[in-house]
Amino acid sequence: MKTQYYGASSLDGFIADERHSLDWLDRLDASDMTSYGEFIRDVGAIAMGSSTYEFILRHLASVEDPAQARWPYEQPSWVFTSRTLPGVPGADIRFVSGDVAPVHAEMVAAAGEKNVWIAGGGELAGQFYDAGLLDELIIQIASVTLGAGAPLLPRRIDDPSLRLRSVQMCGEGFAELRYEVRYAWPDPS
Amino acid sequence: MKTQYYGASSLDGFIADERHSLDWLDRLDASDMTSYGEFIRDVGAIAMGSSTYEFILRHLASVEDPAQARWPYEQPSWVFTSRTLPGVPGADIRFVSGDVAPVHAEMVAAAGEKNVWIAGGGELAGQFYDAGLLDELIIQIASVTLGAGAPLLPRRIDDPSLRLRSVQMCGEGFAELRYEVRYAWPDPS
Repeated sequence: MKTQYYGASSLDGFIADERHSLDWLDRLDASDMTSYGEFIRDVGAIAMGSSTYEFILRHLASVEDPAQARWPYEQPSWVFTSRTLPGVPGADIRFVSGDVAPVHAEMVAAAGEKNVWIAGGGELAGQFYDAGLLDELIIQIASVTLGAGAPLLPRRIDDPSLRLRSVQMCGEGFAELRYEVRYAWPDPS
Repeated sequence: MKTQYYGASSLDGFIADERHSLDWLDRLDASDMTSYGEFIRDVGAIAMGSSTYEFILRHLASVEDPAQARWPYEQPSWVFTSRTLPGVPGADIRFVSGDVAPVHAEMVAAAGEKNVWIAGGGELAGQFYDAGLLDELIIQIASVTLGAGAPLLPRRIDDPSLRLRSVQMCGEGFAELRYEVRYAWPDPS
Protein backbone atom coordinates (compact mmCIF):
# COMPACT_ATOMS: atom_id res chain seq x y z
CA MET A 1 0.00 0.00 0.00
CA LYS A 2 1.36 3.36 -1.06
CA THR A 3 0.07 6.90 -0.89
CA GLN A 4 0.68 8.49 -4.28
CA TYR A 5 0.32 12.00 -5.67
CA TYR A 6 -0.36 11.37 -9.38
CA GLY A 7 -1.15 14.13 -11.85
CA ALA A 8 -0.08 16.49 -14.62
CA SER A 9 1.96 19.66 -14.19
CA SER A 10 3.28 22.31 -16.52
CA LEU A 11 7.08 22.41 -16.96
CA ASP A 12 7.11 25.42 -14.64
CA GLY A 13 5.22 23.67 -11.84
CA PHE A 14 1.54 24.59 -12.17
CA ILE A 15 -1.36 22.12 -12.15
CA ALA A 16 -3.97 24.65 -13.30
CA ASP A 17 -3.70 28.10 -14.80
CA GLU A 18 -4.67 31.38 -13.15
CA ARG A 19 -8.34 30.89 -14.09
CA HIS A 20 -8.32 27.34 -12.57
CA SER A 21 -8.51 26.03 -16.13
CA LEU A 22 -7.03 22.89 -17.68
CA ASP A 23 -7.59 24.01 -21.30
CA TRP A 24 -3.84 23.87 -21.90
CA LEU A 25 -3.91 20.18 -20.90
CA ASP A 26 -6.78 19.32 -23.23
CA ARG A 27 -4.85 20.73 -26.17
CA LEU A 28 -1.95 18.30 -25.69
CA ASP A 29 -1.89 14.88 -27.28
CA ALA A 30 -2.32 12.47 -24.36
CA SER A 31 -2.64 9.35 -26.49
CA ASP A 32 0.80 8.19 -25.38
CA MET A 33 -0.06 8.67 -21.71
CA THR A 34 -0.22 4.97 -20.99
CA SER A 35 0.34 4.83 -17.25
CA TYR A 36 -3.14 5.84 -16.06
CA GLY A 37 -4.90 2.52 -16.79
CA GLU A 38 -2.37 0.56 -14.78
CA PHE A 39 -2.22 3.21 -12.07
CA ILE A 40 -5.98 3.46 -11.44
CA ARG A 41 -6.40 -0.33 -11.24
CA ASP A 42 -4.27 -0.31 -8.09
CA VAL A 43 -6.06 2.62 -6.44
CA GLY A 44 -8.39 1.76 -3.55
CA ALA A 45 -9.20 5.22 -2.17
CA ILE A 46 -9.02 8.77 -3.55
CA ALA A 47 -8.40 12.07 -1.75
CA MET A 48 -8.97 15.47 -3.32
CA GLY A 49 -9.38 19.08 -2.32
CA SER A 50 -12.50 21.11 -2.97
CA SER A 51 -11.09 22.89 -6.05
CA THR A 52 -10.28 19.58 -7.71
CA TYR A 53 -13.74 18.24 -6.82
CA GLU A 54 -15.50 21.34 -8.15
CA PHE A 55 -13.41 21.14 -11.32
CA ILE A 56 -14.71 17.61 -11.92
CA LEU A 57 -18.29 18.72 -11.19
CA ARG A 58 -18.01 21.57 -13.71
CA HIS A 59 -16.52 19.18 -16.25
CA LEU A 60 -19.37 16.69 -15.78
CA ALA A 61 -21.94 19.49 -16.15
CA SER A 62 -20.35 20.60 -19.42
CA VAL A 63 -20.34 17.18 -21.11
CA GLU A 64 -23.19 16.70 -23.59
CA ASP A 65 -23.18 12.90 -23.80
CA PRO A 66 -24.92 11.61 -20.60
CA ALA A 67 -22.81 8.43 -20.71
CA GLN A 68 -19.69 10.61 -20.35
CA ALA A 69 -21.21 12.75 -17.61
CA ARG A 70 -20.90 10.15 -14.87
CA TRP A 71 -18.62 10.36 -11.84
CA PRO A 72 -15.36 8.89 -13.16
CA TYR A 73 -14.22 6.82 -10.16
CA GLU A 74 -15.44 3.54 -8.69
CA GLN A 75 -13.25 3.95 -5.62
CA PRO A 76 -14.55 5.79 -2.55
CA SER A 77 -13.45 9.44 -2.67
CA TRP A 78 -12.73 11.73 0.26
CA VAL A 79 -13.20 15.43 -0.50
CA PHE A 80 -11.42 17.80 1.90
CA THR A 81 -13.50 20.94 2.27
CA SER A 82 -14.61 23.41 4.90
CA ARG A 83 -17.67 24.27 2.81
CA THR A 84 -20.94 22.43 2.09
CA LEU A 85 -20.70 21.02 -1.42
CA PRO A 86 -23.21 19.03 -3.49
CA GLY A 87 -22.68 15.27 -3.83
CA VAL A 88 -23.03 13.18 -7.00
CA PRO A 89 -25.90 10.61 -7.14
CA GLY A 90 -24.59 7.04 -7.15
CA ALA A 91 -21.00 8.04 -6.28
CA ASP A 92 -19.27 7.20 -2.99
CA ILE A 93 -18.10 10.67 -1.98
CA ARG A 94 -17.28 11.52 1.62
CA PHE A 95 -16.81 15.13 2.70
CA VAL A 96 -14.19 15.67 5.38
CA SER A 97 -12.21 18.50 6.93
CA GLY A 98 -9.33 19.02 9.33
CA ASP A 99 -6.16 16.99 9.76
CA VAL A 100 -5.27 14.56 7.01
CA ALA A 101 -3.82 11.88 9.34
CA PRO A 102 -7.08 10.40 10.73
CA VAL A 103 -8.72 10.58 7.30
CA HIS A 104 -5.69 8.84 5.80
CA ALA A 105 -6.09 6.00 8.33
CA GLU A 106 -9.72 5.63 7.22
CA MET A 107 -8.67 5.65 3.56
CA VAL A 108 -5.97 3.03 4.13
CA ALA A 109 -8.52 0.77 5.84
CA ALA A 110 -10.92 1.19 2.90
CA ALA A 111 -8.18 0.66 0.29
CA GLY A 112 -7.09 -2.71 1.71
CA GLU A 113 -4.09 -3.87 -0.33
CA LYS A 114 -4.54 -1.08 -2.84
CA ASN A 115 -3.07 2.42 -2.94
CA VAL A 116 -4.30 5.82 -1.80
CA TRP A 117 -4.36 8.43 -4.57
CA ILE A 118 -3.97 12.10 -3.77
CA ALA A 119 -5.63 13.50 -6.91
CA GLY A 120 -4.90 17.14 -6.00
CA GLY A 121 -4.48 19.92 -5.43
CA GLY A 122 -0.97 20.77 -4.45
CA GLU A 123 -1.82 22.09 -0.98
CA LEU A 124 -3.60 18.84 -0.05
CA ALA A 125 -0.61 16.82 -1.30
CA GLY A 126 1.57 19.14 0.79
CA GLN A 127 -0.48 18.38 3.90
CA PHE A 128 0.02 14.65 3.36
CA TYR A 129 3.74 15.34 2.93
CA ASP A 130 3.82 17.41 6.14
CA ALA A 131 2.22 14.51 8.00
CA GLY A 132 4.86 12.09 6.68
CA LEU A 133 2.22 10.14 4.76
CA LEU A 134 3.21 10.71 1.13
CA ASP A 135 5.19 7.84 -0.45
CA GLU A 136 5.42 8.66 -4.17
CA LEU A 137 5.03 11.43 -6.71
CA ILE A 138 4.08 10.42 -10.25
CA ILE A 139 4.06 13.62 -12.28
CA GLN A 140 3.33 14.03 -15.97
CA ILE A 141 5.29 17.11 -17.04
CA ALA A 142 3.27 18.67 -19.84
CA SER A 143 5.17 20.41 -22.66
CA VAL A 144 3.90 23.87 -21.71
CA THR A 145 4.75 26.69 -19.36
CA LEU A 146 1.94 28.68 -17.71
CA GLY A 147 3.83 31.44 -15.90
CA ALA A 148 1.30 31.48 -13.04
CA GLY A 149 -1.43 29.32 -11.54
CA ALA A 150 -2.03 26.66 -8.89
CA PRO A 151 1.28 25.24 -7.63
CA LEU A 152 2.12 21.54 -8.04
CA LEU A 153 3.40 21.15 -4.47
CA PRO A 154 3.86 24.32 -2.42
CA ARG A 155 6.51 22.93 -0.09
CA ARG A 156 10.29 22.95 0.16
CA ILE A 157 11.43 19.32 -0.18
CA ASP A 158 15.19 19.30 -0.63
CA ASP A 159 16.74 17.87 2.51
CA PRO A 160 16.42 15.01 2.02
CA SER A 161 15.58 15.45 -1.64
CA LEU A 162 13.16 13.29 -3.56
CA ARG A 163 14.57 10.15 -5.18
CA LEU A 164 13.96 9.90 -8.93
CA ARG A 165 12.92 6.35 -9.78
CA SER A 166 12.05 6.46 -13.48
CA VAL A 167 11.47 8.73 -16.45
CA GLN A 168 9.21 7.98 -19.40
CA MET A 169 8.67 9.96 -22.57
CA CYS A 170 4.97 9.97 -23.54
CA GLY A 171 4.99 11.42 -27.04
CA GLU A 172 5.81 15.09 -27.59
CA GLY A 173 3.35 16.24 -24.96
CA PHE A 174 4.40 14.64 -21.68
CA ALA A 175 7.34 13.28 -19.69
CA GLU A 176 6.35 11.15 -16.72
CA LEU A 177 8.66 11.36 -13.71
CA ARG A 178 8.33 9.03 -10.72
CA TYR A 179 9.79 9.92 -7.34
CA GLU A 180 10.06 8.23 -4.00
CA VAL A 181 9.53 10.59 -1.06
CA ARG A 182 12.07 10.40 1.75
CA TYR A 183 11.79 11.93 5.20
CA ALA A 184 14.47 13.28 7.50
CA TRP A 185 13.69 10.86 10.31
CA PRO A 186 15.00 7.28 10.18
CA ASP A 187 12.71 5.03 8.17
CA PRO A 188 11.95 1.94 10.27
CA SER A 189 11.12 -0.16 7.19
CA MET B 1 23.23 27.32 -34.95
CA LYS B 2 20.65 27.18 -32.20
CA THR B 3 19.77 29.41 -29.31
CA GLN B 4 19.39 27.21 -26.25
CA TYR B 5 18.20 27.77 -22.70
CA TYR B 6 20.12 25.11 -20.73
CA GLY B 7 19.97 24.81 -16.96
CA ALA B 8 18.64 23.14 -13.83
CA SER B 9 15.21 23.66 -12.31
CA SER B 10 13.41 22.28 -9.28
CA LEU B 11 10.44 19.99 -10.01
CA ASP B 12 8.17 22.91 -9.20
CA GLY B 13 9.82 25.29 -11.64
CA PHE B 14 12.37 27.37 -9.73
CA ILE B 15 16.00 27.94 -10.77
CA ALA B 16 17.06 29.48 -7.45
CA ASP B 17 15.44 29.60 -4.05
CA GLU B 18 14.02 32.68 -2.33
CA ARG B 19 17.49 33.71 -1.10
CA HIS B 20 18.91 33.41 -4.66
CA SER B 21 20.78 30.34 -3.45
CA LEU B 22 21.69 27.14 -5.27
CA ASP B 23 22.58 25.19 -2.10
CA TRP B 24 19.80 22.69 -2.89
CA LEU B 25 21.53 21.98 -6.21
CA ASP B 26 24.95 21.43 -4.65
CA ARG B 27 23.48 18.80 -2.34
CA LEU B 28 22.31 16.63 -5.26
CA ASP B 29 24.54 14.04 -6.87
CA ALA B 30 25.33 15.47 -10.32
CA SER B 31 27.85 12.79 -11.25
CA ASP B 32 25.39 11.31 -13.76
CA MET B 33 24.80 14.69 -15.40
CA THR B 34 26.69 13.81 -18.53
CA SER B 35 25.24 16.25 -21.06
CA TYR B 36 27.16 19.38 -20.01
CA GLY B 37 30.52 18.43 -21.55
CA GLU B 38 28.99 17.79 -24.95
CA PHE B 39 26.70 20.81 -24.66
CA ILE B 40 29.39 23.36 -23.79
CA ARG B 41 31.68 22.19 -26.60
CA ASP B 42 29.10 23.41 -29.10
CA VAL B 43 28.50 26.79 -27.41
CA GLY B 44 30.02 29.84 -29.14
CA ALA B 45 28.43 32.68 -27.16
CA ILE B 46 26.80 32.99 -23.74
CA ALA B 47 24.05 35.34 -22.54
CA MET B 48 23.15 35.85 -18.90
CA GLY B 49 21.26 38.25 -16.69
CA SER B 50 22.87 40.26 -13.91
CA SER B 51 21.64 37.93 -11.13
CA THR B 52 23.23 34.93 -12.81
CA TYR B 53 26.45 36.88 -13.36
CA GLU B 54 26.59 38.07 -9.77
CA PHE B 55 25.91 34.53 -8.58
CA ILE B 56 28.99 33.35 -10.50
CA LEU B 57 31.07 36.23 -9.09
CA ARG B 58 30.03 35.36 -5.53
CA HIS B 59 30.84 31.71 -6.19
CA LEU B 60 34.31 32.58 -7.53
CA ALA B 61 34.96 34.80 -4.50
CA SER B 62 34.03 31.97 -2.13
CA VAL B 63 36.32 29.34 -3.64
CA GLU B 64 39.55 28.83 -1.68
CA ASP B 65 41.63 27.15 -4.39
CA PRO B 66 42.80 29.94 -6.79
CA ALA B 67 42.85 27.44 -9.70
CA GLN B 68 39.10 26.92 -9.18
CA ALA B 69 38.39 30.63 -8.81
CA ARG B 70 38.75 31.42 -12.52
CA TRP B 71 35.95 32.56 -14.82
CA PRO B 72 34.49 29.25 -16.04
CA TYR B 73 33.84 30.04 -19.73
CA GLU B 74 36.14 30.45 -22.72
CA GLN B 75 33.32 31.75 -24.90
CA PRO B 76 32.50 35.47 -25.00
CA SER B 77 29.74 36.27 -22.51
CA TRP B 78 27.11 39.00 -22.79
CA VAL B 79 25.75 40.17 -19.44
CA PHE B 80 22.40 41.97 -19.63
CA THR B 81 22.29 44.62 -16.93
CA SER B 82 21.14 48.17 -16.37
CA ARG B 83 23.73 48.60 -13.61
CA THR B 84 27.50 49.02 -13.60
CA LEU B 85 29.04 45.71 -12.61
CA PRO B 86 32.69 44.69 -12.14
CA GLY B 87 34.33 42.62 -14.86
CA VAL B 88 36.63 39.63 -14.42
CA PRO B 89 40.32 40.00 -15.44
CA GLY B 90 41.17 37.87 -18.44
CA ALA B 91 37.53 37.02 -19.23
CA ASP B 92 35.68 38.20 -22.35
CA ILE B 93 32.61 39.75 -20.69
CA ARG B 94 30.49 42.33 -22.49
CA PHE B 95 27.90 44.34 -20.60
CA VAL B 96 24.76 45.18 -22.55
CA SER B 97 21.25 46.44 -21.94
CA GLY B 98 18.00 46.92 -23.82
CA ASP B 99 16.42 44.73 -26.49
CA VAL B 100 17.76 41.23 -26.88
CA ALA B 101 17.38 41.11 -30.69
CA PRO B 102 20.38 43.28 -31.72
CA VAL B 103 22.55 41.66 -29.04
CA HIS B 104 21.48 38.25 -30.29
CA ALA B 105 22.59 39.18 -33.82
CA GLU B 106 25.99 40.12 -32.41
CA MET B 107 26.17 36.85 -30.47
CA VAL B 108 25.26 34.79 -33.52
CA ALA B 109 28.02 36.49 -35.51
CA ALA B 110 30.53 35.74 -32.75
CA ALA B 111 29.34 32.13 -32.34
CA GLY B 112 29.88 31.25 -36.01
CA GLU B 113 28.66 27.69 -36.50
CA LYS B 114 28.24 27.17 -32.77
CA ASN B 115 25.23 27.73 -30.51
CA VAL B 116 24.09 30.61 -28.33
CA TRP B 117 23.53 29.63 -24.70
CA ILE B 118 21.04 31.51 -22.56
CA ALA B 119 22.51 30.60 -19.16
CA GLY B 120 19.72 32.37 -17.19
CA GLY B 121 17.78 33.72 -15.59
CA GLY B 122 14.22 32.92 -16.54
CA GLU B 123 13.24 36.49 -17.40
CA LEU B 124 16.11 36.81 -19.88
CA ALA B 125 15.16 33.49 -21.49
CA GLY B 126 11.59 34.82 -21.64
CA GLN B 127 12.77 37.92 -23.50
CA PHE B 128 14.51 35.74 -26.10
CA TYR B 129 11.28 33.72 -26.38
CA ASP B 130 9.21 36.91 -26.79
CA ALA B 131 11.52 37.97 -29.62
CA GLY B 132 11.08 34.61 -31.38
CA LEU B 133 14.75 33.79 -30.92
CA LEU B 134 14.67 30.78 -28.57
CA ASP B 135 15.05 27.41 -30.31
CA GLU B 136 15.47 24.84 -27.53
CA LEU B 137 15.02 24.28 -23.82
CA ILE B 138 17.32 21.74 -22.16
CA ILE B 139 16.20 21.52 -18.55
CA GLN B 140 17.61 19.32 -15.80
CA ILE B 141 14.70 18.73 -13.42
CA ALA B 142 16.28 18.35 -9.98
CA SER B 143 14.64 15.95 -7.53
CA VAL B 144 13.55 18.72 -5.17
CA THR B 145 10.72 21.18 -4.72
CA LEU B 146 11.44 24.69 -3.45
CA GLY B 147 7.96 26.15 -3.01
CA ALA B 148 9.16 29.64 -4.00
CA GLY B 149 12.05 31.34 -5.75
CA ALA B 150 13.20 32.56 -9.15
CA PRO B 151 10.95 31.17 -11.91
CA LEU B 152 12.35 28.91 -14.67
CA LEU B 153 10.55 30.75 -17.46
CA PRO B 154 7.93 33.32 -16.48
CA ARG B 155 5.89 33.08 -19.66
CA ARG B 156 2.78 31.25 -20.85
CA ILE B 157 3.89 28.94 -23.68
CA ASP B 158 1.01 26.61 -24.50
CA ASP B 159 -0.34 27.57 -27.91
CA PRO B 160 1.58 26.20 -29.64
CA SER B 161 3.03 24.08 -26.86
CA LEU B 162 6.65 23.05 -26.61
CA ARG B 163 7.65 19.83 -28.38
CA LEU B 164 9.32 17.26 -26.12
CA ARG B 165 12.28 15.75 -27.98
CA SER B 166 13.95 13.51 -25.40
CA VAL B 167 14.04 12.52 -21.75
CA GLN B 168 17.07 11.21 -19.90
CA MET B 169 17.35 9.95 -16.35
CA CYS B 170 20.59 11.19 -14.71
CA GLY B 171 20.80 9.15 -11.52
CA GLU B 172 18.33 9.79 -8.69
CA GLY B 173 18.94 13.51 -8.72
CA PHE B 174 18.04 14.76 -12.19
CA ALA B 175 15.86 14.13 -15.23
CA GLU B 176 16.94 15.99 -18.34
CA LEU B 177 14.14 17.11 -20.66
CA ARG B 178 14.79 18.56 -24.12
CA TYR B 179 12.19 20.67 -25.90
CA GLU B 180 11.94 22.33 -29.27
CA VAL B 181 10.29 25.76 -29.13
CA ARG B 182 7.58 26.44 -31.70
CA TYR B 183 6.02 29.77 -32.54
CA ALA B 184 2.51 30.62 -33.68
CA TRP B 185 3.67 32.14 -36.96
CA PRO B 186 4.59 29.93 -39.91
CA ASP B 187 8.17 28.74 -39.72
CA PRO B 188 9.90 29.48 -43.03
CA SER B 189 12.57 26.84 -42.47
